[in-house]
Amino acid sequence: MQIQDTIAALATAPGAGAIAVIRVSGAEALAIVSDLFKAKSGKKLIDQDSHTLHLGNIVDGSRILDEALVSIFKGKRSYTGEPTVEISCHGSSYIQQEILQLLFRNGCRAAKAGEFTLRAFINGKMDLSQAEAVADLIASDNAGAHQIAMQQMRGGFSNEIAQLRQELLNFASLIELELDFAEEDVEFANREEFQNLITKITRVLKRLIDSFATGNVIKNGIPVAIVGEPNVGKSTLLNALLNEERAIVSDIAGTTRDTIEDEISIGGIGFRFIDTAGIRETVDVIEGLGIKKTFEKIAQAQVVLYLINSEKFKDQAELFTVEIQKIRNRFPDKPLVLVANKIDHLSETEQESINKQLAALLSEGNKSAVLLISAKTGTGVEALKEQLLQFVNTGALRNNETLVTNSRHYDALLKALEEIEKVQMGIDAGLSGDLLAIDIREALYHFGEITGQVTNDELLGNIFANFCIGK
Amino acid sequence: MQIQDTIAALATAPGAGAIAVIRVSGAEALAIVSDLFKAKSGKKLIDQDSHTLHLGNIVDGSRILDEALVSIFKGKRSYTGEPTVEISCHGSSYIQQEILQLLFRNGCRAAKAGEFTLRAFINGKMDLSQAEAVADLIASDNAGAHQIAMQQMRGGFSNEIAQLRQELLNFASLIELELDFAEEDVEFANREEFQNLITKITRVLKRLIDSFATGNVIKNGIPVAIVGEPNVGKSTLLNALLNEERAIVSDIAGTTRDTIEDEISIGGIGFRFIDTAGIRETVDVIEGLGIKKTFEKIAQAQVVLYLINSEKFKDQAELFTVEIQKIRNRFPDKPLVLVANKIDHLSETEQESINKQLAALLSEGNKSAVLLISAKTGTGVEALKEQLLQFVNTGALRNNETLVTNSRHYDALLKALEEIEKVQMGIDAGLSGDLLAIDIREALYHFGEITGQVTNDELLGNIFANFCIGK
Repeated sequence: MQIQDTIAALATAPGAGAIAVIRVSGAEALAIVSDLFKAKSGKKLIDQDSHTLHLGNIVDGSRILDEALVSIFKGKRSYTGEPTVEISCHGSSYIQQEILQLLFRNGCRAAKAGEFTLRAFINGKMDLSQAEAVADLIASDNAGAHQIAMQQMRGGFSNEIAQLRQELLNFASLIELELDFAEEDVEFANREEFQNLITKITRVLKRLIDSFATGNVIKNGIPVAIVGEPNVGKSTLLNALLNEERAIVSDIAGTTRDTIEDEISIGGIGFRFIDTAGIRETVDVIEGLGIKKTFEKIAQAQVVLYLINSEKFKDQAELFTVEIQKIRNRFPDKPLVLVANKIDHLSETEQESINKQLAALLSEGNKSAVLLISAKTGTGVEALKEQLLQFVNTGALRNNETLVTNSRHYDALLKALEEIEKVQMGIDAGLSGDLLAIDIREALYHFGEITGQVTNDELLGNIFANFCIGK
Repeated sequence: MQIQDTIAALATAPGAGAIAVIRVSGAEALAIVSDLFKAKSGKKLIDQDSHTLHLGNIVDGSRILDEALVSIFKGKRSYTGEPTVEISCHGSSYIQQEILQLLFRNGCRAAKAGEFTLRAFINGKMDLSQAEAVADLIASDNAGAHQIAMQQMRGGFSNEIAQLRQELLNFASLIELELDFAEEDVEFANREEFQNLITKITRVLKRLIDSFATGNVIKNGIPVAIVGEPNVGKSTLLNALLNEERAIVSDIAGTTRDTIEDEISIGGIGFRFIDTAGIRETVDVIEGLGIKKTFEKIAQAQVVLYLINSEKFKDQAELFTVEIQKIRNRFPDKPLVLVANKIDHLSETEQESINKQLAALLSEGNKSAVLLISAKTGTGVEALKEQLLQFVNTGALRNNETLVTNSRHYDALLKALEEIEKVQMGIDAGLSGDLLAIDIREALYHFGEITGQVTNDELLGNIFANFCIGK
């Protein structure tokens, strides 16, 4: 793929800020901006050193568009691996647009989504999985997702894949070389070492594939369905859960109250709380529809949080029992957390009684639990957080293990494992080298898909279309 | 005012973009960031030259927060006039917040709104009116407002004031010196030159004060009330007016359809179109309230655009006439543009007839006009734009005249003129130097208010509180 044109786009968030940054990349980037920039120093931008900053005016003929600070990156020493200029201008949308239009009139083209990172990939500044991690990093909104994206961007994951691919490639070459000497019955590829490599690759692939369950929830947040009658204290509970994390979430301008209630970061992990209408028995048609919707939401959730008003439980234990059993029958394998709220109004004896009755309703072993809390006073909220975190393998995060978060990678890993298992079967069946080589090549192809050593325009198009413009 | 601490804030627009810029300014800026940054080159940031760029990791102990590009500005060679570091990081809100929190834990304080520019003012990088122009520039959303803000930021306006102030100050000193030699009856200050200066100052002040009418509308947009019955084609008209300017407005991400309909840039000038309910006579209480509101909106507008459905005019000429006269009676001095829409359905004879009947309804000389248009086909829309532009002194813009846009400056100019007129009266009445000197000092005070040579914390607080954070 050959790159010839020079692209430009706004790289900072749209809208008005104090400053905005416009990124220009391509062979002509420096020449184009140099002609549109009058440095205070009087010197030509194009004559300046790489990695230097220059104050001056962006001019359209005699008209001054803005006073701007310009950063220049020469040769391959830039994010994209090609000459790049970043224009730091005043942050009005009007000025941003005027400067972009000026660049477009003078030989730049509007960058497509992800095109700067695409160029970084094409120019060998990063492999494909690192490029994908850039988008994940920008989208990360909690510590867990951020850590995984950082690790992937720094190449931890793809380095491992690339190394295994290289080792496998060496064996493939040796085995294919044997074919040229077929009549002499030589073995260039040490079969014992080859078996060891296949065993190792199988182990690594299985570990990475298994990690997707954890990686995916950390990246996308864990869906938790909250089931409970109105006024049981859902909002209060969400606020209580949110409370200690407020510093992280609510300082971010533009975050609305609604969004906060939807996604809460607990211990660095995102939880998406899905409110439901509850499943109280009814003859009303509309409420009946509500129950159907509640079941749909539970089906999508990874955990069900059944919220009980403790004060009502004394009189309506039967009703609650029926509801809980209904959920258990329909979703026998789904983790169910029974949360008795408003316990601050109960005596200790009453609390013990509720705890006992609820515990009796749970099946063994599927991470279910009973918790007594008061969302209002905060009692038990910490325990609930810990309970929720148990649904995530946070150990993997703490130990900085490689986690696969990208479903494209997951698919490629599954396919690679399939081929490697064929290779293993071939070895076990004593297949000849030429037949083994075919499956090895297939496995190599899927390894290459992850790192981008094997790629095509359609794949790249799909990946980078999900980026934002300017990255 | 002494500055000791180091401040930090997000300088780009909030929300997610490809990159975000965090600005750190103060004596310790470089030292603080240097400790939190591991350059790829392995070199310490603090040892690098001013105006250079460095790639590396922002680290919190052993944890890598982000890969970032860091710009450094040493000594007084920065926007703020003090050591400054700009961290260009990945654009996720999470990363922005993590880096800011890291800076706050390591000796930085969160910058208040406008605090970077306040420091630029205190450190003598710009005068007060230039600092105010920075905020105007960021807020500018059309060519006119942008041009005026650029001109003011580049000092055109305050240079003029500062120069007059200096000349006046010289005379004040001379006159005050005469007082020391009062018994000798000397005249250090040449009275003829002094009179010339006062005449010149009076002329300049009056010109600047007069320019406020133009400057203010260009900065804030010209309010135009649209009066017309439902279905007369208000939306179609706004769309038609918008059409040729679409490239400028709608390319800006985040601009909603609603906003576009409210403010339209015509020939580089912003017009704020205020929709009204119309003033059709009614006995209905609620509609009666609508009419009251319409009159209130007309009162706030600078121009009234009365929109007529030409097809209905033939049969309801009487009704339209009553309405138009009602507006004229109530707002005799307000420019009124009668716009007959949907003329594409009329014959030429019919068009002439409407034109004649409507023209007869207008009073002379207050910039009122009749226009026949078809918002649907675009006929006459260009003429309407030209008519609207006639309400603005665009010549002042074309000739790059100094325009006052800031009501604080306007107030100070009015007060300065008042004092200068007292000085003039004093000269005419042959007042003694000691009395003249008092009024001169008063005038000097108001001049100084504009440029910031005279200032106080409360004034500065008010001005910079209107800035965005990070500027």
